[in-house]
Amino acid sequence: MINVAVLGYGTVGSGVVEVIEQNKAIVNKKSAAELNVKYILDLREFPGDPYEDKIVHDVNVILEDEEVSIVCEVMGGVGAAYQFTKQALEKGKSVCTSNKELVAKHGPELLELAKANNCNYLFEASVGGGIPIIRPLNASLTAEKIEAITGILNGTTNYILSKMEKEGADFAEVLKEAQDKGYAERNPEADVEGHDACRKIAILSSLMMGKNVDSEKIVTEGITKVTAADFMYAKAAGCTIKLFGMSKALSDDEVLAMVAPFMISKEHPLAMVNDVFNAVFVTGNMLGDSMYYGRGAGKLPTASAVVSDVVDCARHQGKSILCFWDKEEVKLADVAETEKAFYVRATADAKAEIEAAFPGGKVLTVEDRSKDFGYFTPVMKEKDFAAKCEKLGDKVLSKIRLA
Amino acid sequence: MINVAVLGYGTVGSGVVEVIEQNKAIVNKKSAAELNVKYILDLREFPGDPYEDKIVHDVNVILEDEEVSIVCEVMGGVGAAYQFTKQALEKGKSVCTSNKELVAKHGPELLELAKANNCNYLFEASVGGGIPIIRPLNASLTAEKIEAITGILNGTTNYILSKMEKEGADFAEVLKEAQDKGYAERNPEADVEGHDACRKIAILSSLMMGKNVDSEKIVTEGITKVTAADFMYAKAAGCTIKLFGMSKALSDDEVLAMVAPFMISKEHPLAMVNDVFNAVFVTGNMLGDSMYYGRGAGKLPTASAVVSDVVDCARHQGKSILCFWDKEEVKLADVAETEKAFYVRATADAKAEIEAAFPGGKVLTVEDRSKDFGYFTPVMKEKDFAAKCEKLGDKVLSKIRLA
Repeated sequence: MINVAVLGYGTVGSGVVEVIEQNKAIVNKKSAAELNVKYILDLREFPGDPYEDKIVHDVNVILEDEEVSIVCEVMGGVGAAYQFTKQALEKGKSVCTSNKELVAKHGPELLELAKANNCNYLFEASVGGGIPIIRPLNASLTAEKIEAITGILNGTTNYILSKMEKEGADFAEVLKEAQDKGYAERNPEADVEGHDACRKIAILSSLMMGKNVDSEKIVTEGITKVTAADFMYAKAAGCTIKLFGMSKALSDDEVLAMVAPFMISKEHPLAMVNDVFNAVFVTGNMLGDSMYYGRGAGKLPTASAVVSDVVDCARHQGKSILCFWDKEEVKLADVAETEKAFYVRATADAKAEIEAAFPGGKVLTVEDRSKDFGYFTPVMKEKDFAAKCEKLGDKVLSKIRLA
Repeated sequence: MINVAVLGYGTVGSGVVEVIEQNKAIVNKKSAAELNVKYILDLREFPGDPYEDKIVHDVNVILEDEEVSIVCEVMGGVGAAYQFTKQALEKGKSVCTSNKELVAKHGPELLELAKANNCNYLFEASVGGGIPIIRPLNASLTAEKIEAITGILNGTTNYILSKMEKEGADFAEVLKEAQDKGYAERNPEADVEGHDACRKIAILSSLMMGKNVDSEKIVTEGITKVTAADFMYAKAAGCTIKLFGMSKALSDDEVLAMVAPFMISKEHPLAMVNDVFNAVFVTGNMLGDSMYYGRGAGKLPTASAVVSDVVDCARHQGKSILCFWDKEEVKLADVAETEKAFYVRATADAKAEIEAAFPGGKVLTVEDRSKDFGYFTPVMKEKDFAAKCEKLGDKVLSKIRLA
């Protein structure tokens, strides 16, 4: 029997217990062992809960019980979660987590600690919710030099953008509706400003490079400036708008990474990823493009990924699973120096100025819109685009990168 | 150093050598060992080939060399390939293969043999070419009760159907063009009649069930009867047509599996899988839907999958990787008894008869087509649909299942 402790009995934590219990026969078969949830750590009491008797309030009960060999850290945050994870790993207990913030911040250190103690630190649930993406990168695409990763990594923003597209509604309106339905937090900043996607692309980029990509250095823009009008012009051009976390290996030591809304062709496989679904698009030098799609959040999908890590730990008791993510920092390329084309929306009276500023581009028109127009610039440096937009001032109403 | 032998120096075999050589640094790092291609078995000579000195004509050179611990079987067929695989496994050499025919036919026996000899029989490349799907099923979706798998599993037929849709061309015309370009074999039967997709869905179904699904018992229809007219009616209904390999677990011992063209909504994630791309759609009881997309064929993508298996073998030397696929046969449900809706195309004069035969359905019209019409039946048993179509005789021009 393998004893498991769950740290945090919130949404994901209760999901982990539910998956282990409800799919007991499968999980035990796949683990080649019997899994038993021995403890659930939470500060709260859960009177009447079927697992009430497993609740403990002191993490030391878990840390000092030699029978516990796997710990699921689903508390979130980088305070107590960081301490408990370190303590568990130091005692040779494997840790499985959905905590992207902690993984992005302390991944290499915790992986090293796990290795030193012949146990594992696994984090399949930290990116893409239930979508298998971490294990495919670590254990499936092992013959590939991975050149680029582009993902729709945040369910809340994808839900909002999908709704805006479908209903022609503006951001604020859809955000409010999403909050009312519980799809967006009351304090939505981490999602809508792109911070959540940033942590996830930092994790994926680090695995791509085998070295550390500092999430705090990634240029990050959210979706708050995207308007219903932009979706109209996108549609006129056969495009849609998605929040991408994207990362491209420029060399073994340098990566171009950013989080921002991108306007993409409706023909792109990522264009059909709607609502709360996520997808990760990976480009390798032998395989070319591959994509991994599914539910990027939610209690049971996320819990399923945590439990798949528990199964992997059970299969590798006392053995460290290979994961390449060194402490060495990767250089982040200066986004301002990179080249791409852009969409701008500008006031109708500025047509001549826009065409003069970005010669050789393409005008987009939408019936019944007379006060503004859309424009695709040619490929140009980000810094040149920014400088020209600054000169144009208030005449530029929106700007979105093309991918 | 880990010595590898490659059986068959054709398209995939030369790709395997190329991937190991070109991505040497990555492959060795991910293997935590140095891989060395020691032998290449082929009956032909390859004068001037950079690996000419590794070519051998006698498999016993490989089988009797104790230094060889991993064998890549990329010969194809179920004759010599079967013998050589058995002999290698009996000697404790792991075998990695792209040979779907052999895996579908002798999978459980070869897996058992590998286990008995503390080595591995891995077959990531047998389904979906370079798309990681076998390892995700075996090692990632381990907390899921997998309920259904639906895949676009054959690149040739997907290329033909995509072309038919895009160009409004008929099957025979596009097939000829595909043959001229080398995308389809001169003898295209295995692809266009669905046999290749059948073997692949048999493998996926067996892994879903953990027991053997006999590919020869799977109802299999190809795409030869799909016409340009059918694509016109599909378009009118917001649909497209794809060749699916599909499988649904009805109980722990019974599966509903078939290969056939299906008419699907353009909104379905599989609808955007075009040209030679493949994708596998997996439904689990916790995660819900997830999808794995990429190049389903081709030299380097397929070779990349074979080499990812070589890396996995290198990581698990002397240890058997868990794979659940027992010899016990799964019962295949009688497709005739299952229910679904159907598309029919019929002669214009049969409208009243069609509506009387399938009351409550929906007529589809396409401008400028006056000699036929399309019709969606309500959901009904396959056998009832077939009986009614038989009565209608020549008036029914096409019939395709709806998904």
